[in-house]
Amino acid sequence: MKHLFYNDYSEGAHSAVLSALSRGNLEQEAGYGHDESSRRAADLIRERLGQPDADIHFVSGGTQANLIAMAAMLKPYQSVIAAASGHINVHESGAIEATGHKINLAASLEGKLSAESVRAVIDQHTDEHMVRPGAVFVSQSTELGSIYSKNELQSLLETCRAHGMYLYLDGARLGSALASPQSDMGWRDLGPLLDMFYIGGTKNGALLGEALVICHPALKEGFRHHLKQRGALLAKGRVFGSQFEALFQGDLYLELAKTANDSAQKLFEGIRSMGFGFLAQPVTNQVFPVLPDSLISELQKDYGFYVWQKVSEGFSAIRLVTSWATPQQAVEGFLADLNRLKGSQNPLGKLEDYL
Amino acid sequence: MKHLFYNDYSEGAHSAVLSALSRGNLEQEAGYGHDESSRRAADLIRERLGQPDADIHFVSGGTQANLIAMAAMLKPYQSVIAAASGHINVHESGAIEATGHKINLAASLEGKLSAESVRAVIDQHTDEHMVRPGAVFVSQSTELGSIYSKNELQSLLETCRAHGMYLYLDGARLGSALASPQSDMGWRDLGPLLDMFYIGGTKNGALLGEALVICHPALKEGFRHHLKQRGALLAKGRVFGSQFEALFQGDLYLELAKTANDSAQKLFEGIRSMGFGFLAQPVTNQVFPVLPDSLISELQKDYGFYVWQKVSEGFSAIRLVTSWATPQQAVEGFLADLNRLKGSQNPLGKLEDYL
Amino acid sequence: MKHLFYNDYSEGAHSAVLSALSRGNLEQEAGYGHDESSRRAADLIRERLGQPDADIHFVSGGTQANLIAMAAMLKPYQSVIAAASGHINVHESGAIEATGHKINLAASLEGKLSAESVRAVIDQHTDEHMVRPGAVFVSQSTELGSIYSKNELQSLLETCRAHGMYLYLDGARLGSALASPQSDMGWRDLGPLLDMFYIGGTKNGALLGEALVICHPALKEGFRHHLKQRGALLAKGRVFGSQFEALFQGDLYLELAKTANDSAQKLFEGIRSMGFGFLAQPVTNQVFPVLPDSLISELQKDYGFYVWQKVSEGFSAIRLVTSWATPQQAVEGFLADLNRLKGSQNPLGKLEDYL
Amino acid sequence: MKHLFYNDYSEGAHSAVLSALSRGNLEQEAGYGHDESSRRAADLIRERLGQPDADIHFVSGGTQANLIAMAAMLKPYQSVIAAASGHINVHESGAIEATGHKINLAASLEGKLSAESVRAVIDQHTDEHMVRPGAVFVSQSTELGSIYSKNELQSLLETCRAHGMYLYLDGARLGSALASPQSDMGWRDLGPLLDMFYIGGTKNGALLGEALVICHPALKEGFRHHLKQRGALLAKGRVFGSQFEALFQGDLYLELAKTANDSAQKLFEGIRSMGFGFLAQPVTNQVFPVLPDSLISELQKDYGFYVWQKVSEGFSAIRLVTSWATPQQAVEGFLADLNRLKGSQNPLGKLEDYL
Repeated sequence: MKHLFYNDYSEGAHSAVLSALSRGNLEQEAGYGHDESSRRAADLIRERLGQPDADIHFVSGGTQANLIAMAAMLKPYQSVIAAASGHINVHESGAIEATGHKINLAASLEGKLSAESVRAVIDQHTDEHMVRPGAVFVSQSTELGSIYSKNELQSLLETCRAHGMYLYLDGARLGSALASPQSDMGWRDLGPLLDMFYIGGTKNGALLGEALVICHPALKEGFRHHLKQRGALLAKGRVFGSQFEALFQGDLYLELAKTANDSAQKLFEGIRSMGFGFLAQPVTNQVFPVLPDSLISELQKDYGFYVWQKVSEGFSAIRLVTSWATPQQAVEGFLADLNRLKGSQNPLGKLEDYL
Repeated sequence: MKHLFYNDYSEGAHSAVLSALSRGNLEQEAGYGHDESSRRAADLIRERLGQPDADIHFVSGGTQANLIAMAAMLKPYQSVIAAASGHINVHESGAIEATGHKINLAASLEGKLSAESVRAVIDQHTDEHMVRPGAVFVSQSTELGSIYSKNELQSLLETCRAHGMYLYLDGARLGSALASPQSDMGWRDLGPLLDMFYIGGTKNGALLGEALVICHPALKEGFRHHLKQRGALLAKGRVFGSQFEALFQGDLYLELAKTANDSAQKLFEGIRSMGFGFLAQPVTNQVFPVLPDSLISELQKDYGFYVWQKVSEGFSAIRLVTSWATPQQAVEGFLADLNRLKGSQNPLGKLEDYL
Repeated sequence: MKHLFYNDYSEGAHSAVLSALSRGNLEQEAGYGHDESSRRAADLIRERLGQPDADIHFVSGGTQANLIAMAAMLKPYQSVIAAASGHINVHESGAIEATGHKINLAASLEGKLSAESVRAVIDQHTDEHMVRPGAVFVSQSTELGSIYSKNELQSLLETCRAHGMYLYLDGARLGSALASPQSDMGWRDLGPLLDMFYIGGTKNGALLGEALVICHPALKEGFRHHLKQRGALLAKGRVFGSQFEALFQGDLYLELAKTANDSAQKLFEGIRSMGFGFLAQPVTNQVFPVLPDSLISELQKDYGFYVWQKVSEGFSAIRLVTSWATPQQAVEGFLADLNRLKGSQNPLGKLEDYL
Repeated sequence: MKHLFYNDYSEGAHSAVLSALSRGNLEQEAGYGHDESSRRAADLIRERLGQPDADIHFVSGGTQANLIAMAAMLKPYQSVIAAASGHINVHESGAIEATGHKINLAASLEGKLSAESVRAVIDQHTDEHMVRPGAVFVSQSTELGSIYSKNELQSLLETCRAHGMYLYLDGARLGSALASPQSDMGWRDLGPLLDMFYIGGTKNGALLGEALVICHPALKEGFRHHLKQRGALLAKGRVFGSQFEALFQGDLYLELAKTANDSAQKLFEGIRSMGFGFLAQPVTNQVFPVLPDSLISELQKDYGFYVWQKVSEGFSAIRLVTSWATPQQAVEGFLADLNRLKGSQNPLGKLEDYL
């Protein structure tokens, strides 16, 4: 295998993050998140967000963040509204339901909910024979690589406010969204638009770790109890603190995300210039080129990626995911190999439909 | 503060473990525990245990290990029997109950259950108005620093077998138990005596990480689903694999535990030679000297430790915990300071009762 | 209001059931289902089913039956597959999820699952990031009034067997299904086709009460613990026993269901003879005539029923539900009133499309 | 068997309650508690309590009432404090834990908690490694037949208020407590002293049914969702409404309880006059005479009762429970038989110690 484009967590940590893990290693620190590096990391994040009153808690992964957030947000009879493609719906092995809560699916487009689709679900839940929606779950960037605009989140927030619900954002790939050229949002837009969200570390330079940010005052109370009860409170909180300190001391977090996005853009442009089409314009670090199946088979000998969906007879879309660690030679090599393989197959005549 | 003797997780990781975290950092690996270092670490552990068929899963902390184990072991109406001092009973913020299961307390001595105390609980649970005990939870070493002998675990196992129950061991401090001079158990005794247990990394040289070992075949099925559902499956499994590889390639795991025990023994002998008594003979890495309250106040100016319990008018037991990272000069400094402070207080006349 | 056709639980109990409740009222009986009438009722049901080894437990309602069944059937990471219209999905306020389990929706036709639609869901759930389907939930008759044939249930059972799953049937309206002229099933077909199901009393002559029948041996163990834990074990089990004894001593249960079906059939034929169309041919005790909206408004002044769905501009389907207690004069009165109102509106010309 | 003194739910319903069940049987009513009899019964209870704003919900049993109350009162990380003898602790098969909550045991005397014992538990729960007590559970009369005074409940309420906790009362035998000559409480004292409680029907004249009363405004919201989610919402709410209407139209509820208490008193006085002693003075409908074991064996041939505990060599306490339905001839018969058997054994010389 020359390179794997399966996902954005195949590599370890960025070197600055790794170094940070070693710093002050033998100094004695208070346990369970009361260490100095966790405090400093939280302060840096609060400052970056312009949210001096936000509570910051570090957890070890996205599913853990999501299940604790829902357990904390929802009353026993409340549900969370999500897109069918939402991570909590398909890829968390029933973690939300295991905390006792139903997920209500709302119609979505490219992995994104709209205020209308959310309202439609709310309107169907009229009495005590049905759950009562208590929160909306969105991902930024979404599981399909798309991003919400400021206005879209604002509409969702207003819908939530109108119905006594919370708005929660899964930011496993928040960096790729904020660093996207298509994004109209910055760090300081997050706090006012969200009740709780997390800033993903695992997929953006850290070995592990996500920073849960609580903006809504009602959700802060007792949160460390929630963390402990779900097994999320690490004895050595420095594991998280030191990594996030490294990511947020300067602009490393967004730089890494931008690197990933740039590689995706480079793949997109290279593949487009060869005349191939795409499922969608890439917005973040995922690219979905449509290729002849025979060519896909050839590529799979040297590269790892998922075949996303069949597009038409003989043609499928593949998914290429880039990360902060994707080597430039892997990108260039892929394009060169594709160009070489393509030539021998002369697919151009058939592919214009997908441009 | 000259040194903290509060616990065994105040420092970071052993240098060999830290280095291992960096090795192969930019190599692409399969996610969620399917990486090569996790496989190698699991193989090393299986070999050490002499349990080629055991399943090994890595998780990030003890509470997480315990709650997943109980969720996997117990039917909805089943309970787990534990000592009142058991970690799951007091110090996990209701994590076991949050998975739906009651903890039945059995009488214990120095933190240890006996087959008799377990049977007494079983005998009380006679019909469907009560929960049915489905597992026994023990800690090795216990929360009070004591250890089970092989015979004691064997009796507990037989009691479990006689009643269709599982025996589970919390090994957050398993190293300190195995490395104790009082221990009659070795690595190869664990598998035959236990249905599931974990080997604690966090308190013995790792930054984070515990290795869950499943011996009973019925508990292996679907376990990765349990892990995912509780948010325990890290995207970058190498975080655990590389650390446990470092701990188990040679004998590092037991060496670190022995270092901690030795420091505790040194404290014990030094304090005893000054004429002070103890709550109990130290067996692992915890020492409970009984000191005059005034002397305790003096010591607290320079050292961090918990005052464990009042023993008599003017005298209390304190708890000193050592770790693999406790510097020898901290041990020696503590003894020298105690000796100096003691001299000025001449406590000997009053303390003979506690010898 | 002349009569309500909203549902089949608006009236109290059949007179024979009511009388049974009083019989032996002051005789002392063992509690919690160990009374003689519960034993006799269970024996009668076992005999009727031809299932001498089945376990029978009585509970107070359908949601209670369903949630206990799922809690008993499923491991923590397992889900149940249901139709979107399934009672557990929409109308139980998240009761299944509150026991920790996800509901996976499979495509359905007229409220019925097929082996194919179930297999499609199973095939999508391939690894530990997703729940694992552990049971299939069907209703007989369904929430839309349709019924499964013997072959259809047989196919579902085979699919379940092939994947280590259980087949569960919600029989809130089992009587109406068995008594349907379209049914090819009798009492003795149920046991071999199902792992667990319940025979609904509440909607077929009882004041309250459903009889859970456990056919699969693995599901019998500890079931009374499940009942107690979910608050389903009534101190005075005679409440259920005496009612089900009355329903199953002779053929009362099916007679009541047939009465309800006959009234529905009478409504269907009467309405059809006036030239109106229907959403579907009525199979059990629900009729869905399509009427002009103006006529619906007139009818609503005297009768209670739900407007089911808009069918075309100016026309909607309504739902009329009959029960064992529906008076013949209510049926005849409704037809007479409809005929009178219809005449004045002359809708026939526009309605032929729906015949 | 001449009579069973095992418990207070061996008989069916009081005749007035039974008749009420039949009244208006074929009238069509709204479902799920929206029927007229449920409304009238709730109004009668509100009036009796002097709590016009209280919410009243009917459920089918005590365990169901308790588990729903706790699910509604507690946040995920909160526990409920109870006596070891509390029904939720021992006799509900882990129902509270199945909703995710730990029960913290506080020291108790004769089944009663004190403000001091509750505070001791609260004081031990200091940080997020432990659950946070969120409610106190008491029973009135207690599982041991004793009762709380107004002052005792007041102290418990104040303790709850001081720590942001709720006070909940299990009134399975509330009638026997209010009707006790030792009680200093009346109906109107309950509301101001409690946040939520239930008035037990099953053990005081009803076939089934308990009336949950919610006094604290914060607990009213969404409660019907809780009921539905736990399978407690009966389709035919009239089952509860009609019975409680019968019990509360006049003073039947307290009259029945007084009848039970009087029978217990009569047993007490009769047995005392023969020279036997008792574990405690009977306060409600439970009597605990201490008898020679040989005499107990003789009595067991004709009467059903539990042997409660061994008191000294050759002597044990038995428990006799009376109910509204205990026939006077059963009481008199028991006394006559005891007198006859006693005579032949001449136990008096040995029993004075227990007087």
